[in-house]
Amino acid sequence: MKLALDAMGGDNAPQINIDGAKLALEKINTLEKLYLVGDEDTLKAAVDATGIGSNPKLEIVHAAEVVSMEESGLVAVRQKKKSSMSISVDMVKDGTCDAVLSAGNTGAAVAASTIKLRLLEGVERAGIISPLPSQHGYVLVSDTGANPDAKPSHLAGYAVMSALMAKYVYARPVPNVGVMSNGTEDCKGSAFSLEAYRILKALSDKGLLPFNFIGNCEGHDLFETDLDVAVTDGFTGNILLKSVEATAKAFGHWLKAGIMESFMAKLGALLMKPVFKKMGKRMSADTIGGCPLMGVRGVSIIAHGSANGTAILNACRMADSMCRNNINEHIVEIMAKINTALRGEIAMA
Amino acid sequence: MKLALDAMGGDNAPQINIDGAKLALEKINTLEKLYLVGDEDTLKAAVDATGIGSNPKLEIVHAAEVVSMEESGLVAVRQKKKSSMSISVDMVKDGTCDAVLSAGNTGAAVAASTIKLRLLEGVERAGIISPLPSQHGYVLVSDTGANPDAKPSHLAGYAVMSALMAKYVYARPVPNVGVMSNGTEDCKGSAFSLEAYRILKALSDKGLLPFNFIGNCEGHDLFETDLDVAVTDGFTGNILLKSVEATAKAFGHWLKAGIMESFMAKLGALLMKPVFKKMGKRMSADTIGGCPLMGVRGVSIIAHGSANGTAILNACRMADSMCRNNINEHIVEIMAKINTALRGEIAMA
Repeated sequence: MKLALDAMGGDNAPQINIDGAKLALEKINTLEKLYLVGDEDTLKAAVDATGIGSNPKLEIVHAAEVVSMEESGLVAVRQKKKSSMSISVDMVKDGTCDAVLSAGNTGAAVAASTIKLRLLEGVERAGIISPLPSQHGYVLVSDTGANPDAKPSHLAGYAVMSALMAKYVYARPVPNVGVMSNGTEDCKGSAFSLEAYRILKALSDKGLLPFNFIGNCEGHDLFETDLDVAVTDGFTGNILLKSVEATAKAFGHWLKAGIMESFMAKLGALLMKPVFKKMGKRMSADTIGGCPLMGVRGVSIIAHGSANGTAILNACRMADSMCRNNINEHIVEIMAKINTALRGEIAMA
Repeated sequence: MKLALDAMGGDNAPQINIDGAKLALEKINTLEKLYLVGDEDTLKAAVDATGIGSNPKLEIVHAAEVVSMEESGLVAVRQKKKSSMSISVDMVKDGTCDAVLSAGNTGAAVAASTIKLRLLEGVERAGIISPLPSQHGYVLVSDTGANPDAKPSHLAGYAVMSALMAKYVYARPVPNVGVMSNGTEDCKGSAFSLEAYRILKALSDKGLLPFNFIGNCEGHDLFETDLDVAVTDGFTGNILLKSVEATAKAFGHWLKAGIMESFMAKLGALLMKPVFKKMGKRMSADTIGGCPLMGVRGVSIIAHGSANGTAILNACRMADSMCRNNINEHIVEIMAKINTALRGEIAMA
C-alpha cells in the first residue's frame, strides 16, 4: 500500500502523525510508501527528531495550508486547495497513493474524499463505517454521518460495503447484518426502515447478498449478540454512535468520581487497575484506529481528532487490509448485481 | 391521586406490584386510593400475605385476562377487553382514577392509553418521555417509541410536554431543551430535524415556549451538560435509548468479567463495592421508576418489564407529581398558543 497521511490533521498534529508513521513503518510490512503531507520544514525537523528521516519508504510532501477543526468542510475543500488534507486526497485521485488517512476535520475529510475521489461504480452514496467493540470483537455501524438524509436503497449499499469490511478486515466469513429499528420484530420500524428491510429481504431471498441478513436489530444486539453490521441512515447512525460514546464516557467519569470519594475505594481501584486498563484499551477509539468512508474510488480513513500514534498505526493497518483485499473491486462486483435487481422487480414491489 | 395499578404487568407480577403498592401506601401521603387490578383471588392472597389487605386506601378490582409480554399491543387492546391493563386504563377513562401504571407489555400500554384515553386538546401525537441519569440529575428524551414516523411539528409538542415534566416533576424552573441532531452547529441535521429546529426557533423567537430552546444537541449533551430535554422522533429516540441502555449494560458486564479474572481484582472490587452500588442505583431504571406516555387525557406511566417494588413506588411518585401539578392543564394551555402560531406564519416560512 502507498499511503498519503495528512500530517497536519488531528488535535495533536503533527506529532501524533509522526509517531504513527514511525510505528507503521516498523510494523506494516506491506507498506510500500508513506507520504507525510504538511508543512515541509516542520515535518522535516520532526521526522529527523524521531529518527525516521532517512527511511526510504518515507517522503515529505509540502502543503502550505491547514484545514482547522472548526471550519465548514465544504468551504475548506473549495477554498483551501493547498491544504494538507486536500493534497493528501489529490494523491489518491492521481494514482500516486492507494489510501488517504486524516485525523483532521471530519466534515472536510468526507467532503474532500467524496468530491475529489467520486463514487465507485454502482454506489449511490458514500457512508462512514464505525466499528464498535462488542462481545465477539467488533460490530460495524453504518452510515454514521456522511449522509443524514438517506434513501432506503442507500442502506443496501451500506450493508454490502460494511459486510465486505467485516469479512475481509475483521475476518467474519459470513457476516450477520441487521437494520437498526425500534424493535426486533419484523413489523417494527419507521416507514423508512421498513422499506430498507423490504429491499434487503428481497435481495437476500434472491441470494444476491454476500452476508446473512438477520432483519431488524436494536441496541442490545450491538454488544451482546454475534451481529457484525448494523445499517441505518447517517442521521440516526451519528446520534447512535455519539450517544454510545457519551454513555461509555459518562460511565467512566462517574466511576472515577466515586473512586475519589473514599480511601478504600481508591485502594480498590489500585488493585483493579489492570482491569480498568484492559477495558479502556478495548473501548478506546485508538484501538480501532479510524473509520473508513466507503463507496469512494480509493481508500479513505478518518481518524478521531484526539487520535494518538497508536490510533494512526491502527488506521494504517485498516487501510492496508482494505487495499490488500481489493475491497472496492468486490463492492463494484456485488453492487452491479444488486442494482440490476433494484431497478427490476424489487423496486416494483 | 387515585391510581389504577395493572397488578398483572411485569416479568415478576403480581409480587412486584404488591411490593410497590405497599411502599406507595406507606410513603406517598397524597395517594388517596390505589386500585390493584388483576385476578382477584391471587391478589387477595398476596395483599393479605404482605399485610396490606386491610388498608382502606387499597382496593382490588378483578380482571379475568392478562396481556402477555409477547402479544401485539394493538391486537391485545382490541381482543382482551377484560385484561388487567385494559381495565386499568378504563378506570382513568371513566374518571375513577387520575393515573394508570403498568409494567406490562409496552406496546399494549401505549395502544390502550392512546386509543382509550385519546389525545389532549391541541396535542397532535402522544410521546413517551424517558428520563436518563445525567451529570445534573436527569435528562428527558422524547419520543422514545410511541410515534416512529413523526412529523417535525410533533417535536414541538414533545418539547412542551417534556419541558413541563422537567419543570414540575424534576424541579428545573426553565428547562434547557434541544433537538437531537448529527452535530450541534445550526446547519447540522436531516431535513426532518432541521424543520423541527426551524419551528422551535420560530416559536422561541415569538416568546411562546415555556423553556429555553438551545438548538441542536448530541450524545455528550445528554450526560455532561445542563440539558434537560432532548426531543426527536420515536424511531431515533427508541434506538438512542436502547443503545444507551445496552452500552451501560455492556460496560457493566465487561467490568464484571475483568474482575473475575484475578484474585487482586476481586479484592479491589470488594473494596469498591459501595462505589459500584451507588453507580448501579444511579443508573438503574428502578430509580427512575417509569416513563410517562404524555399527551393523553389522564396520566399514564409505563414501567420497565423487569421493574421491582422500588420501581413501582418511584413510578407512583412520578404519577402523583404529575397529577398534583396538573401537568395536562398546562400542556393544553401552552399548546393552544403554539398551535395558533403553527397554523399561522410559522407554517408559511
